[in-house]
Amino acid sequence: MRRLKLIIEYNGAKFHGFARQESLFTVQGELERALGFLLHENVEVFASGRTDKGVHALGQVVHIDTSSNIPCEKMVLALTDCLDKNIRVLSVKEVSKNFHARFSVKKKTYLYKVKTKNFSVFDYDFALYFPYKYDVKLLKRALKKLCGVHNFKAFCTSGTNTKNFEREIYSARYIKDKDGFVLEFTGNGFLYNMVRIMVGTCLDIARGKLDISCIDKAYKNFQRNILGKTASASGLYLAHVMY
Amino acid sequence: MRRLKLIIEYNGAKFHGFARQESLFTVQGELERALGFLLHENVEVFASGRTDKGVHALGQVVHIDTSSNIPCEKMVLALTDCLDKNIRVLSVKEVSKNFHARFSVKKKTYLYKVKTKNFSVFDYDFALYFPYKYDVKLLKRALKKLCGVHNFKAFCTSGTNTKNFEREIYSARYIKDKDGFVLEFTGNGFLYNMVRIMVGTCLDIARGKLDISCIDKAYKNFQRNILGKTASASGLYLAHVMY
Repeated sequence: MRRLKLIIEYNGAKFHGFARQESLFTVQGELERALGFLLHENVEVFASGRTDKGVHALGQVVHIDTSSNIPCEKMVLALTDCLDKNIRVLSVKEVSKNFHARFSVKKKTYLYKVKTKNFSVFDYDFALYFPYKYDVKLLKRALKKLCGVHNFKAFCTSGTNTKNFEREIYSARYIKDKDGFVLEFTGNGFLYNMVRIMVGTCLDIARGKLDISCIDKAYKNFQRNILGKTASASGLYLAHVMY
Repeated sequence: MRRLKLIIEYNGAKFHGFARQESLFTVQGELERALGFLLHENVEVFASGRTDKGVHALGQVVHIDTSSNIPCEKMVLALTDCLDKNIRVLSVKEVSKNFHARFSVKKKTYLYKVKTKNFSVFDYDFALYFPYKYDVKLLKRALKKLCGVHNFKAFCTSGTNTKNFEREIYSARYIKDKDGFVLEFTGNGFLYNMVRIMVGTCLDIARGKLDISCIDKAYKNFQRNILGKTASASGLYLAHVMY
């Protein structure tokens, strides 16, 4: 058996999320279907983490175990043919048996795209529309407050089995672009909906709807309801997973 | 009764084409639903022309007749709220009873987006992928051959009721952009699938799969099968309608 690491890109608007679900079109389901077809064996896909319905990936990482000897470069081409056009395999590489797509993760980077102008009917699946006056300095201060080691329990949608809410955010950047900006978060891990709650909170602070002190308060009292709304899935991109 | 002219934008990937169809989500059906709801009367929408499933509009024009007195500016805002987010009304203007969205058309401009590189899973609904070597001069010569008054019967998908196949193309331009190019066609009218067949033919000529002489031959023998494939709907945008 060989263990293979695949880097994949997908358009989250076209799937019912990452995780396999009976009779729904999911990223995992489609990957397992195409890999099974290509390798003539049952394949189970392990990802760096799930992404929700509507969330995109520029560089999701998964691993599989296979008894097939197909060279990695050939698999990239063959998978391009077998897979639905809304997923693309960017690379396939043989890795050691110690590698695990989820448990070996060191860092992840997410991007969140915000358009402040020229938002059209073509943008809904790919960015958040934020046509409000906002204070860039305040936005950057809020991002800075998110960096470091914190208990992010308040930045997490309840109903998950997680016990440990401590995470370290290495960087949280504001990157201006033509029609708005991108918020970029790199950390050692992210709780369920954490990026979307961080974005919703930072935007509410930037436009004056929330006071920046809510972040420090949330670190102490763990109250979800003192933070901003969960920003829509459509603006979120899993950009890189580092091992 | 007032006659109103509406300019609208829509993401064609989200609709089963323009024309109303029982129990399918169409641009006309959605416009008539929202207008009926807003104006409290049955409204029939007349467009400059239909667009097929997958074809987008940046500036489709329609007209309606209404007994309502809602000011035009208010209608724009109210329709933004009532309409599905994949259609947007850009403007509403009162026009004379002599105006007809279809019969008063003087010129139409279509754009066709082609990406030659950096094509990703996010582009499928919005552009054609054309990763081939091509000859720009030959492409421009082919576009030039399409200009003028011609019988475009060969550039038309059969099965329509059209009797007159003569159309005038005023301009057919190649516009380079970052990741590829746009082909822009302005004419006094376009037959069914005409832009997509012109694009498929020009691209086949540009990459050496067809000889440029096929265009002149097609003007004479009306044979669809000597031209290129019908290019995919996803790259096509109805950009402007002029009256």
